[in-house]
Amino acid sequence: MNLNDIRVGIIGGGQLGKMLIQEAKKMDFYVCVLTPSADSPAAKIADEIIVGDLYDEDKISDIVRKCDVTTYEIEHINTDILCSLEEEGHKIYPYPKILKTINNKYVQKEFLRKNNLPTSEFEKISDLNDIASKFGFPFVQKACVGGYDGRGVKVIKSEKDFNSALECDSFAEKYVEFEKEFSVIVSRGINGEVKVFPVVEMMFDENKNICDKIISPGRIERYITEQAQEIAINCIELLNGVGVFAIEMFLTKDKKVLINEIAPRVHNSGHHTIESCITSQFEQHIRAICNLPLGGADLIIPSVMVNILGEEGEYGHPFYKGLEDVMKISGVNVHIYGKKTIKPFRKMGHITVVDNDIEKALGKAMKVNKMLRAISLEGDNHEE
Amino acid sequence: MNLNDIRVGIIGGGQLGKMLIQEAKKMDFYVCVLTPSADSPAAKIADEIIVGDLYDEDKISDIVRKCDVTTYEIEHINTDILCSLEEEGHKIYPYPKILKTINNKYVQKEFLRKNNLPTSEFEKISDLNDIASKFGFPFVQKACVGGYDGRGVKVIKSEKDFNSALECDSFAEKYVEFEKEFSVIVSRGINGEVKVFPVVEMMFDENKNICDKIISPGRIERYITEQAQEIAINCIELLNGVGVFAIEMFLTKDKKVLINEIAPRVHNSGHHTIESCITSQFEQHIRAICNLPLGGADLIIPSVMVNILGEEGEYGHPFYKGLEDVMKISGVNVHIYGKKTIKPFRKMGHITVVDNDIEKALGKAMKVNKMLRAISLEGDNHEE
Repeated sequence: MNLNDIRVGIIGGGQLGKMLIQEAKKMDFYVCVLTPSADSPAAKIADEIIVGDLYDEDKISDIVRKCDVTTYEIEHINTDILCSLEEEGHKIYPYPKILKTINNKYVQKEFLRKNNLPTSEFEKISDLNDIASKFGFPFVQKACVGGYDGRGVKVIKSEKDFNSALECDSFAEKYVEFEKEFSVIVSRGINGEVKVFPVVEMMFDENKNICDKIISPGRIERYITEQAQEIAINCIELLNGVGVFAIEMFLTKDKKVLINEIAPRVHNSGHHTIESCITSQFEQHIRAICNLPLGGADLIIPSVMVNILGEEGEYGHPFYKGLEDVMKISGVNVHIYGKKTIKPFRKMGHITVVDNDIEKALGKAMKVNKMLRAISLEGDNHEE
Repeated sequence: MNLNDIRVGIIGGGQLGKMLIQEAKKMDFYVCVLTPSADSPAAKIADEIIVGDLYDEDKISDIVRKCDVTTYEIEHINTDILCSLEEEGHKIYPYPKILKTINNKYVQKEFLRKNNLPTSEFEKISDLNDIASKFGFPFVQKACVGGYDGRGVKVIKSEKDFNSALECDSFAEKYVEFEKEFSVIVSRGINGEVKVFPVVEMMFDENKNICDKIISPGRIERYITEQAQEIAINCIELLNGVGVFAIEMFLTKDKKVLINEIAPRVHNSGHHTIESCITSQFEQHIRAICNLPLGGADLIIPSVMVNILGEEGEYGHPFYKGLEDVMKISGVNVHIYGKKTIKPFRKMGHITVVDNDIEKALGKAMKVNKMLRAISLEGDNHEE
């Protein structure tokens, strides 16, 4: 077999695409990327790029037709044309029809409920007062489409918040008092082979409302992690998923596991697998969609991943203040995505700290968080 | 600091260059490569390539002048022009004058002897009979310049072998009865910071006379490995080496450590560090030459690296027979360099098997060796 004879197409040019290509190039795959910009992180290391919008039918047809197998690193793409191309017989994984279930969060919740997969109570919003009388305060309002990284989600604490509620097609979720948020990366081959990665714990930056740290393995009791992994496997099997999926979950205060959200792709909560697991989520995804045997998903060494997010108010050419000092810390692995411009809360890179002692890794990660600042070069502080 | 603002030049376009670039791109360095061929392994993922001979003064001046720091992945390059460019103030690491010591193996041995670094007895050959009467049979004849991967080395077993002796400037080494061959990867920053990797054991294919497996950590007593690491550190310091160096050594039957050979670059005996150590030799080299803090060099998980060598008699477009089956083995990491053509004994890729149990890793590596064949596609078996 010659892996180089398999042309892999990736729709999307961000950091997930970049890391997929990095792993694919180790094995000498040929990779083509559809990217809105020729200087995106993935574009810079791809064998071939097609510059175009991710909703552009012609460009999507282009990449699918010229590649042996096509995947995507983002959900917000033209699903209809992908479904048609798949019907024509082109190999596209995960199967694009999955996106119809995933991209509408209300439909996603219905999928979970229909399949008895544990998730919080929810209901389509027509009248906020009705929801309030049913779920009580607080409750969570979620946009059916378009939200990510904390956008499209609003906690309604009282009637006062009705005025600032989201004004789009939305649904309400019963507010869950949770102890922990965690995530399970799970992978499945075309032939149904499944491998599940260790459960990781997600820590959020309260101000930025975005996940800023991933602890692997999560500090969660074993029976819970086993339950979570089983749920993740059920989930990918019921979806007929091929490739890597991330299943984000809550552990409620009364020790129930609930699915929060499904991402049909490699995920921020799996970046640590590059250094921390036998096979990285990126290599695993490439193996899965190319109909190759899946790799081992076991932990090699504990780790904490820290997102490098653009600081508030920063726009322009990025500058990583404190990076040299961070590199002095043993176990620090630096990933800079190579985005041309910085924006507040934009994911610019990440650091994975490995250490045999997870608490030490966490301590180092906290230090990294304090030391490292993704800002713009002086005098470059204008909004684009 | 912006790593992307540092332009790194690499002279040489082989697999070592490719893996240097892969690690550099993680951190978003900009990398330019001087390569004899536009489809070499490194060329395919570099930001910029200069196609040219590695002895071409103009091309070497080009890359050095356009990069902030230049390194090399092969010793057989134009050293004189590099020395002049360095005198002009350009940053070239390791310092090119080191190559004058390393590239002539006789001068290298003299360097070792002068500095009391342990190595086997040796003497310039003018008359083979003189050597025989001094060292007895067998002894080893080595070409002063140009030999590598088993070439330029001849064991003279008796007077009968005099006729087939190398006909070039050469020296003789006393034959060493050794128990093991091993290697120490050591790194040193511009400021003198030193980090040494765990000692690895090298296993040779008797037929091909080329290293085909690296066992990490080497199965060697602790006091020996400590001694070997100390020798490696002395060696890089005495050379004023900057970057990653490989020091190949013998362990004699009477438990003496002797230096066999020094490579002033990342090395085949350090490929396993990608998966097996906190920092890979490739990232370490980039850190060192860019005046960044060195990373940790500790072992994370034991590993065995297996070279994928072109089979005897195979020329043409490469084909990796059995690769899919090899990928079923847990802990297998596949590296295919992407060389356009296969040749007998050519290094086409490598497999690193990781396993918490080193003997299990070795068992898997043996299996890999048997299962995997780098051959040419049928009908393509002509010598170029």
